[in-house]
Amino acid sequence: MSGPTLRSDALRTRERLLEAAGDLLEMRGPAFTLPELARHAGVGTATVYRHFTDVADLFSAFESRAIAALVAAIDEAGTAGGARQSFDRICAIWIRRSVRESAAARFLRSHRGLLERYRSGDPGIVALIGRLVATLEALIAAGLLPEQDPVAAALVWMTLFDERTTVDLSRIHAWTTRRITDYLSAAVLGALRATA
Amino acid sequence: MSGPTLRSDALRTRERLLEAAGDLLEMRGPAFTLPELARHAGVGTATVYRHFTDVADLFSAFESRAIAALVAAIDEAGTAGGARQSFDRICAIWIRRSVRESAAARFLRSHRGLLERYRSGDPGIVALIGRLVATLEALIAAGLLPEQDPVAAALVWMTLFDERTTVDLSRIHAWTTRRITDYLSAAVLGALRATA
Repeated sequence: MSGPTLRSDALRTRERLLEAAGDLLEMRGPAFTLPELARHAGVGTATVYRHFTDVADLFSAFESRAIAALVAAIDEAGTAGGARQSFDRICAIWIRRSVRESAAARFLRSHRGLLERYRSGDPGIVALIGRLVATLEALIAAGLLPEQDPVAAALVWMTLFDERTTVDLSRIHAWTTRRITDYLSAAVLGALRATA
Repeated sequence: MSGPTLRSDALRTRERLLEAAGDLLEMRGPAFTLPELARHAGVGTATVYRHFTDVADLFSAFESRAIAALVAAIDEAGTAGGARQSFDRICAIWIRRSVRESAAARFLRSHRGLLERYRSGDPGIVALIGRLVATLEALIAAGLLPEQDPVAAALVWMTLFDERTTVDLSRIHAWTTRRITDYLSAAVLGALRATA
């Protein structure tokens, strides 16, 4: 019995550390140490080092968790109602999460390109690009987008949905989440109608 | 006489350090120290600290220099031949520089949003957005783009021209510079026709 309990305790602690990391990123940016994270999360320093080898490892875990949560939300939303509705739903989910969380997430984005990570089998990026490619292929099949390389198209979509752009439009341009979603969704479709 | 000479010596050293920083970024990514940079550039450690307080300061100088060089190249290309030709020229210059240099530049992009930096008066970003806005306003005046917020439009352009995307399409997708330029230029115009 103690195995599963210990493991779920460890998962809860890890989750608590990742939540605390999000707070610190939002408040102070990426310049904090693992002992500071431990203090902020109310756990011992040794505990934080059992979960993360260094700050880079923590940030990578934080980003993976955000991508996994986005993929889970996309899957939960389902594909009812046709290609265009699926596309609009994914855009709305993504921008909503992005406005809420990207103040932290923008500090984490990898130096590596998305295609580079896709080709190297990064699980979160593979899952996310898989969902986007399926949606784009449905738009193409429905005649709503011209035939094109769906992986390059997914890259354009992800590039336009850059966290820093969402933060800019939300905080600096003071646009609503709805307006950002409409603007960037239209930009993606317009771009992909023109590139083919 | 010694004043100007000293100053131009200092500028040459600074340039040599920034060139060496580009080499190190390309070869090893952003994980190096100022003493390592000094060794790589063949100057003393004290010299490197006279030019840069820390690695973050070095990276900021490197990025500013890249943006200033892009703006200078845009200005040198001029505005002959109308709005569409100006737009195409800027895209070609930008992507060519980006393919050549972005292996280093992608490590440097600020966590701060572009609009945030524009509003705070970051000189390079103000200069670059100024050139893009002028080009977009000429496209709008020529009827090649619908009326729209030119600063938001410049943000879409800069977002689509993200260094990591260029690196991805060049290195991972193995596209030529010409193909990347045509694809991303069409994406910008398509996006901005659709968002208005």
